[in-house]
Amino acid sequence: MAISVPVIRRLIEYRRHLRMRLAAGTGRIYSHELAALAAITAALVRRDLMTIGFTGSPARGYDVKGLIERIDKLLNPASPTTLALVGLGALGRAILKYFGRVHPELPIVAAFDVAPEKVGRVIDGCQCHHICDAESWLRAQQVAVGIVTVPAEAAQGVADLLVRGGVRGILNFAPVRLRVPPRVFVEDVDIAVSLEKVVFFARPENERVEAMA
Amino acid sequence: MAISVPVIRRLIEYRRHLRMRLAAGTGRIYSHELAALAAITAALVRRDLMTIGFTGSPARGYDVKGLIERIDKLLNPASPTTLALVGLGALGRAILKYFGRVHPELPIVAAFDVAPEKVGRVIDGCQCHHICDAESWLRAQQVAVGIVTVPAEAAQGVADLLVRGGVRGILNFAPVRLRVPPRVFVEDVDIAVSLEKVVFFARPENERVEAMA
Repeated sequence: MAISVPVIRRLIEYRRHLRMRLAAGTGRIYSHELAALAAITAALVRRDLMTIGFTGSPARGYDVKGLIERIDKLLNPASPTTLALVGLGALGRAILKYFGRVHPELPIVAAFDVAPEKVGRVIDGCQCHHICDAESWLRAQQVAVGIVTVPAEAAQGVADLLVRGGVRGILNFAPVRLRVPPRVFVEDVDIAVSLEKVVFFARPENERVEAMA
Repeated sequence: MAISVPVIRRLIEYRRHLRMRLAAGTGRIYSHELAALAAITAALVRRDLMTIGFTGSPARGYDVKGLIERIDKLLNPASPTTLALVGLGALGRAILKYFGRVHPELPIVAAFDVAPEKVGRVIDGCQCHHICDAESWLRAQQVAVGIVTVPAEAAQGVADLLVRGGVRGILNFAPVRLRVPPRVFVEDVDIAVSLEKVVFFARPENERVEAMA
């Protein structure tokens, strides 16, 4: 399916809210209620759901369970997705533990590092291999997504390796823009920039204005 | 200063690239070079730098050192900013270590948790207090920014506590939208949603289209 990145992002968020509502016993939901949960407009909610061909009733709203199933059908892969992580430092290990808890359906099947005390061991439930073995290993296991948790200076080399290993998506925690072929999707999670932003707008003399771009 | 969130985000990123260039011996840089590093257009770079009153020369570009100093002056607070972190699980501890390494100028002066084995101890160089002591502690230390690394169901309660403690900025890692007064700036880092996005676009049958919203 051809779909824009922001729409996918919002659908993921709608599903999370819908699941919580369903667990709380809510059977139907209005676009304005879902909009309030996601902090956007009701018009945008309606447009997104129209995009995926799901319709509600103006009087009764959307069927919560049906909408979750519709988003599941779109988002959940028919075959399992295989992930690998490169860089078992403090951040890498935390990510490994965190994803293992919140996304058990997306298993990280291997980790790669260069440190002799890590290679060959099972760390937080995940087998750690040497980075030199990554390319052949990624190909053999048909790994679809690579998670990059190495320092900035090592990140581009790791991205090149992941691409050669056949990976089609990269979740990048290193504070650097990766150069990859157009077929590879990169999502940057730049925690340090996020912190600097908060620090700036937390100062009383700085006022944020609405964005133009 | 009144400035939009995306402009600040880009200025933070420009500065990072400029510092690397300066370290590599580059004295001057053209807008199209900075644009390539930040993966945006040269026109946007020029507009952002005009916003902060920094001008270059069409023939010789921008002075790298002068531009870094201009951005420093805008972004670096006159007095130190004090931070605290709530939730010393795997993610919280990794964030504590990571920020200690990449942002030594922004010290996390205290952490809060409820676990008896953590409270009263120094964990990764940071004193851990009980969450019940947070409000008075935050006020006394004039903490400006709170980092939320608790599970989703605890996050709103923690945000309320941070707001009562006088915090003006929140970096939120919990997968939930926080309700805070307008004077408080919230930046969400939603790692789990980012992973789901990458997994979606890594599937060969899914094609991303340019965003309309």
